Amino acid sequence: MAPVAPRSGDAVFANIERVNAELFTLTYGAIVRQLLTDLEEVEEVNKQLDQMGYNIGIRLIDEFLAKSNISRCVDFKETAEVIAKVGFKMFLGVSASVTNWEADGTCCSLVLEDNPLVDFVELPDTCQGLYYCNILSGVIRGALEMVSMKTEVTWVRDMLRGDDAYELRVKLLKQVPEEYPYKDDE
Amino acid sequence: MAPVAPRSGDAVFANIERVNAELFTLTYGAIVRQLLTDLEEVEEVNKQLDQMGYNIGIRLIDEFLAKSNISRCVDFKETAEVIAKVGFKMFLGVSASVTNWEADGTCCSLVLEDNPLVDFVELPDTCQGLYYCNILSGVIRGALEMVSMKTEVTWVRDMLRGDDAYELRVKLLKQVPEEYPYKDDE
Repeated sequence: MAPVAPRSGDAVFANIERVNAELFTLTYGAIVRQLLTDLEEVEEVNKQLDQMGYNIGIRLIDEFLAKSNISRCVDFKETAEVIAKVGFKMFLGVSASVTNWEADGTCCSLVLEDNPLVDFVELPDTCQGLYYCNILSGVIRGALEMVSMKTEVTWVRDMLRGDDAYELRVKLLKQVPEEYPYKDDE
Repeated sequence: MAPVAPRSGDAVFANIERVNAELFTLTYGAIVRQLLTDLEEVEEVNKQLDQMGYNIGIRLIDEFLAKSNISRCVDFKETAEVIAKVGFKMFLGVSASVTNWEADGTCCSLVLEDNPLVDFVELPDTCQGLYYCNILSGVIRGALEMVSMKTEVTWVRDMLRGDDAYELRVKLLKQVPEEYPYKDDE
């Protein structure tokens, strides 16, 4: 059987089950508010959001691989492009751009100009230091870990903090070569 | 100017911004898990989910009114049909049926056969008593309060508890007549 061609983010997004973006935005806002009330320390909220995202990412990767028909990326560069163009589109309906590569190809930025998580959000002064969208960094870290890439994902720009875009820095720490128990053509 | 016709749930749903349903499902799961960890008592988690839903409902009603072109329902019966056929469709992509009316027209059931909140969810034995989808009852209660209807919304069937469908009982407690500061044709 001929291999199935990978599908674009738009094509995948058009054909999956979806819910209203505002419902999602408000639901996410309810989580952040709840964590702020329960945990009090903004730093703890950042950690918890990242951890929640990680738990989501390690499950979402299955949906991603199943629906996108993307099997394996040749290197971290291709991986970053796929996250930006297919992953973001498929899950949030927006796409990101990949920029600011380090020369050795192990670190880049994902830049989002549109971000459905933050519609109508304004942070009060008491929330300085909060990375409101920290769930996203966790999702990426969790999903990549499931395809054998250990990464560190941090925010370098955040429009809720007055920056002009959302920029996530993704650094590849370690790539475990996948070992297959059988050969492809067996 | 001629009044704008109300739009069907399908039409509205096709034209709004949406996100991936699985991302929403997993994100909602993360909230429930977090509340179970933080609050410990299942009864407290039910209350908190309902309260979160209420806070979401009082904001979501604006989006609903703006996007659906529905202005006012003649009575509670019409309101229930609109929630079931337009509201659920517009936000969750599924529709509900309205049944089990009380003779006086103040209490009915919304029955959902498909419920995106619970995909892949199984409750462990320690969560007996949890109303996993309690955010929904809060959303309906909050949204209706914004259009002057005080209601009580409770679960009577829940597939996660072994029932054959999701059934929400919606009881109209009090309807405050809307008073307009000006007449329609002024």
